[in-house]
Amino acid sequence: MSSATTPNTKELNNHVDDEQPTTRRIRHLSLHLNPPSTHNNQIELGACSSRAKVDVNAGQLSSYLRGKHRDVQERVFAYFNSRPDLQTPIEILKDDYRELCMRQLVGLVREAGIRPLGYVVEDPVKYFAIIEAVGSVDMSLGIKLGVQYSLWGGSVLNLGTKKHRDKYFEGIDNLEYLGCFAMTELHHGSNVQGIQTIATFDPVTDEFIITTPNDGAIKWWIGNAAVHGKFATVFAKLMLPEHDKNALSDMGVHAFIVPIRDLKTHKTLPGVEINDCGHKVGLNGVDNGALRFRDVRIPRENLLNRFGDVSRDGKYTSPLPTINKRFAATLGELVGGRVGLAYSSVGVLKIAATIAIRYSLLRQQFGPPKQPEISILDYQSQQHKLMPMLASTYAFHFATVHLIEKYAQMKKTHDEQLVADVHALSAGLKSYVTSYTAKSLSICREACGGHGYAAVNRFGSLRNDHDIFQTFEGDNTVLLQQVAGDLLKQYQEKFRGGTIAATWSYLRESMNTYLSQPNPVTARWEGEDHLRDPKFQLDAFRYRTSRLLQSAAVRLRKHTKTLGSFGAWNRCLNHLLTLAESHIETVILENFIEAIKRCPDANSRAALKLVCDLYALNLIWSDIGTYRNVDYVAPNKAKAIHKLADYLSFQVKNIAKELVDAFDLPDHVTRAPIGKQSPGEAYAEYTQFVGF
Amino acid sequence: MSSATTPNTKELNNHVDDEQPTTRRIRHLSLHLNPPSTHNNQIELGACSSRAKVDVNAGQLSSYLRGKHRDVQERVFAYFNSRPDLQTPIEILKDDYRELCMRQLVGLVREAGIRPLGYVVEDPVKYFAIIEAVGSVDMSLGIKLGVQYSLWGGSVLNLGTKKHRDKYFEGIDNLEYLGCFAMTELHHGSNVQGIQTIATFDPVTDEFIITTPNDGAIKWWIGNAAVHGKFATVFAKLMLPEHDKNALSDMGVHAFIVPIRDLKTHKTLPGVEINDCGHKVGLNGVDNGALRFRDVRIPRENLLNRFGDVSRDGKYTSPLPTINKRFAATLGELVGGRVGLAYSSVGVLKIAATIAIRYSLLRQQFGPPKQPEISILDYQSQQHKLMPMLASTYAFHFATVHLIEKYAQMKKTHDEQLVADVHALSAGLKSYVTSYTAKSLSICREACGGHGYAAVNRFGSLRNDHDIFQTFEGDNTVLLQQVAGDLLKQYQEKFRGGTIAATWSYLRESMNTYLSQPNPVTARWEGEDHLRDPKFQLDAFRYRTSRLLQSAAVRLRKHTKTLGSFGAWNRCLNHLLTLAESHIETVILENFIEAIKRCPDANSRAALKLVCDLYALNLIWSDIGTYRNVDYVAPNKAKAIHKLADYLSFQVKNIAKELVDAFDLPDHVTRAPIGKQSPGEAYAEYTQFVGF
Repeated sequence: MSSATTPNTKELNNHVDDEQPTTRRIRHLSLHLNPPSTHNNQIELGACSSRAKVDVNAGQLSSYLRGKHRDVQERVFAYFNSRPDLQTPIEILKDDYRELCMRQLVGLVREAGIRPLGYVVEDPVKYFAIIEAVGSVDMSLGIKLGVQYSLWGGSVLNLGTKKHRDKYFEGIDNLEYLGCFAMTELHHGSNVQGIQTIATFDPVTDEFIITTPNDGAIKWWIGNAAVHGKFATVFAKLMLPEHDKNALSDMGVHAFIVPIRDLKTHKTLPGVEINDCGHKVGLNGVDNGALRFRDVRIPRENLLNRFGDVSRDGKYTSPLPTINKRFAATLGELVGGRVGLAYSSVGVLKIAATIAIRYSLLRQQFGPPKQPEISILDYQSQQHKLMPMLASTYAFHFATVHLIEKYAQMKKTHDEQLVADVHALSAGLKSYVTSYTAKSLSICREACGGHGYAAVNRFGSLRNDHDIFQTFEGDNTVLLQQVAGDLLKQYQEKFRGGTIAATWSYLRESMNTYLSQPNPVTARWEGEDHLRDPKFQLDAFRYRTSRLLQSAAVRLRKHTKTLGSFGAWNRCLNHLLTLAESHIETVILENFIEAIKRCPDANSRAALKLVCDLYALNLIWSDIGTYRNVDYVAPNKAKAIHKLADYLSFQVKNIAKELVDAFDLPDHVTRAPIGKQSPGEAYAEYTQFVGF
Repeated sequence: MSSATTPNTKELNNHVDDEQPTTRRIRHLSLHLNPPSTHNNQIELGACSSRAKVDVNAGQLSSYLRGKHRDVQERVFAYFNSRPDLQTPIEILKDDYRELCMRQLVGLVREAGIRPLGYVVEDPVKYFAIIEAVGSVDMSLGIKLGVQYSLWGGSVLNLGTKKHRDKYFEGIDNLEYLGCFAMTELHHGSNVQGIQTIATFDPVTDEFIITTPNDGAIKWWIGNAAVHGKFATVFAKLMLPEHDKNALSDMGVHAFIVPIRDLKTHKTLPGVEINDCGHKVGLNGVDNGALRFRDVRIPRENLLNRFGDVSRDGKYTSPLPTINKRFAATLGELVGGRVGLAYSSVGVLKIAATIAIRYSLLRQQFGPPKQPEISILDYQSQQHKLMPMLASTYAFHFATVHLIEKYAQMKKTHDEQLVADVHALSAGLKSYVTSYTAKSLSICREACGGHGYAAVNRFGSLRNDHDIFQTFEGDNTVLLQQVAGDLLKQYQEKFRGGTIAATWSYLRESMNTYLSQPNPVTARWEGEDHLRDPKFQLDAFRYRTSRLLQSAAVRLRKHTKTLGSFGAWNRCLNHLLTLAESHIETVILENFIEAIKRCPDANSRAALKLVCDLYALNLIWSDIGTYRNVDYVAPNKAKAIHKLADYLSFQVKNIAKELVDAFDLPDHVTRAPIGKQSPGEAYAEYTQFVGF
């Protein structure tokens, strides 16, 4: 590259890692002399309201967003729309709610003919489409369905072998065999390896004896256990008698099918004690229970034996060499629940954003002197609350669609690289998306003021039901640590010359960029074209992640010497969590940019580009301290980013109606009177609801 | 000041505004040569766990925190502890809950002998102590009490005259006259001047005719209206017939006492239509209703006539000259509700923080290899979630105690300056504190994982009930704008040489500091003593506010030219909201620092200092981008602030048990099994609750 010519911006930004300091200096000087054409003047906010609005057709955008399984979602919606008797009322007692939820599930499976179990393994994308739609109708129902098919059904199919599939498939699919997934104990949730329930093999009777050794080992929060379940997949430490002495060997955590209620009488079986976990903050349509086992005997064949088996004479065999590998394989098969939660959480976010934005367009309050009041979405503060949220909803949509497709591919190919990739990606997206949705539900309620507080307008139940998405299937703080751990592993492998998983591959390049100094010239570019250049945005996201990764690795190495690896990890924990979030944000942005490229309709593409720019710049501004601290952006550039993010919120506001219409949620699914698609009806329906 | 001597730090930081550039340069150089003695080395985090723990006695700290009306709070707690039949169960239908809540209120007033009405005007500090305690028992009850005494009672006492007091006082106080406060309409909440209900004077019958002209003017969300209210203070535009023509004059919004139900039969009175607003997200013990008036006639004396009266012949008289002044005076009398909400919101935060922190000390999960598991509060991430929150709780405690005392003083003296000060301060604190508490309740639930999702552990109901604190008595976003508006007014007055309200007075000095350049030497000081110096912290907070204020004023002036004042305000809205928050944070920090100085016990003082430092440095770090952008802190100082904030979280964790014990909340008030004061009982009570 010669400094005498005027290179284009893209060339300039690539391959800076291998140049010499002198070359770099000359390159920087050449930029001073020949600023690239994309370096515009600062945008003039004073004129922003006169700018042309992006022209977007909600129908066309919607057809790009809709997954290939929209048909089955519409069948779900149509079924519940035709059965108002199955709609969950606003006030319902816990026990009635559980029965209603059971009737909803039975109706869906037996009347509407939705049979999810086959899809769990063979067409997961379709399965996730079903569960998202069902969750939109009622989140308790979505979770009850998930417990039955992903957790109980999924554990039988994924951890068991053909004999289990043959015996249980039909009963699970047609709901005769309602079941539970009994992993969590009172004292152990995140630390699954710490569970204390034991399953001791009795070679005399060829049975396992399931025992709860103390109160802390009571299985807790077990869905379907309090009322409806007949079986439970119970996770317990497998104890095998040693042949030569009177001792037991702990073979690690395994899963067992334990019948808990009589198939005919529905009575609790002997040795099983079940109590009701009682009211929860939300999801009260799901009957969570607590299970204690007093030496419950089950036949040897009830061990789900895909990753480890016990022979008639008490010998242990496994295709995997160590306890840790078997444990990882067992938990690995359960990643589908996490994938489904991330995807469904976006569905919840869509509903909330739709209601809040439609109401904000309708609601008027205050205005210029002697002029009509203006809509509350015309206020910059309301745009600030809702437009980056709308942009994130779109970003998460594409990221989670990407995730479910990757998961489906993994289920087909069992490619090892893909398995690792899906694990980390699902942990990261589940954590990031559900935390974001949880916060957003509160913001939506607050943004809709008093009318957002009416239960009929849904924010309360959405928030209460969704809240636990942050905890179950992996506590978000724990999952982010898995992402950070994976990043550090990849980082080490990079320097050992190993391969890097697809999702991580950007790190190889950007780590080099990071290790060179920030470019003092581009740090000052503040033109709109530059700030909206996906390359600038991606570079900034990647730079941040690389920097956090490099510094985390250095700090960990340092602290490990004095504190040991556990202590060092804890000392750097906030840093590691930030790293994980930064990485996930990068992956989300990458997916969004790719999705825009693929969009066939030019108008939709322009709208999505606008939304994506808001997503990216809002996040860069949110962490501007980091960028400023290393002079990645100069002070004036930071200001320009802030200004442009506000301006993009304003522009997205102008097409907000179309953007939420494109989510294609029928009024009978959103249900909130203040969120009607046709704004004229909103207040009228609301007053009628109250009795006028 | 001579550059040849070595001045101490305090001298150096004062009076930098009036020196010459050369003097400043020399001063800076002298600092290079003679670093002040407080400039320590960076703290060594590697050694932090070995540092001495601050020695604090929860009892002594508690006695400093407890207000002078702790006795009446203990009476409230003791009464409800003695009446388990009055405790709100976890599951209760809306209609039953409303009746229970009414019984709770009647019991409190008639059995426990708590008579709040007299305190509303004469001893507001005692009144707020009662309402905080009652809200801790059940937030619905707190709000129902507030509707009866602050809103209905307060409007009669504060907007009416002696005749109203004579007629209504006893009935309100003894609950015979249950009443409502009917201000909000379906279409108008924040914009009270936009309400459309009218009260037309009929000179023939000497009555007012109350009319709801359209559906949008239906009074909405009116507490006590759906079931229990006999009266309502109705806000309506007063219409007076003009003498010489057949027209009506709009005299602006006034308040009227309107009977809505028969005192004996409790039947709804003719012309009044009442519907039930139905389920809310929370506070379902309060019976909110919607009221439509069809030409309801009330006697002339029912006009609450303190700020405006109508004579027998239809002439209007007022001690205040304009509609706007009368409106301001009317709303001004209602500021007590806002004060009470800010104060009670801190009470809610105390409960949530207590439960979450106690559980986090008890709960163990994971640990170093082959060692016992550690408590989850030992994780840096959990400290990060909960310790700045605990610090904020303390900060808010002192700030709101200051507010209620100022309010009480205002009620006595009616000093104009004090009135203005209390108005802005209550708007700011109500907004800031309730938003913070709302977010914290979600964080607490999440931080307690699955067990935080059990309804019995309270986070759900606390969040649902508290949620609307952000909206009622003034939408938080609207209130923050009032603070910003007031700041801008004070700013203009400063340059006109006028007086500045007490709360604002720091601006005069810090604006001068701000207008000089940041000091490039102190910007690099990163020693712990410097960062923990209240002067550094206050300077940083004040600098930020001053800068936001100055730049907001400049931007508003610029945009007003092209957009008009309404448009300009909206264009700068996010900026103005940040300004208001920054100011409130400054006021809170000032109060905290003052409260520490006043604390008589040295150990308590040391603990409070630690907590205050965490509060201050965590906030500086949260907005580090702003400080970095103007080089108020150098990059390494930014890092040192971040490190120290993490370290202070760790140190506060070491005394977290004592800090929450000092809130002095009995177990029968916190109620959550996982939040028992004696940790040994927590799990046992929880398993017993579920039935084991």
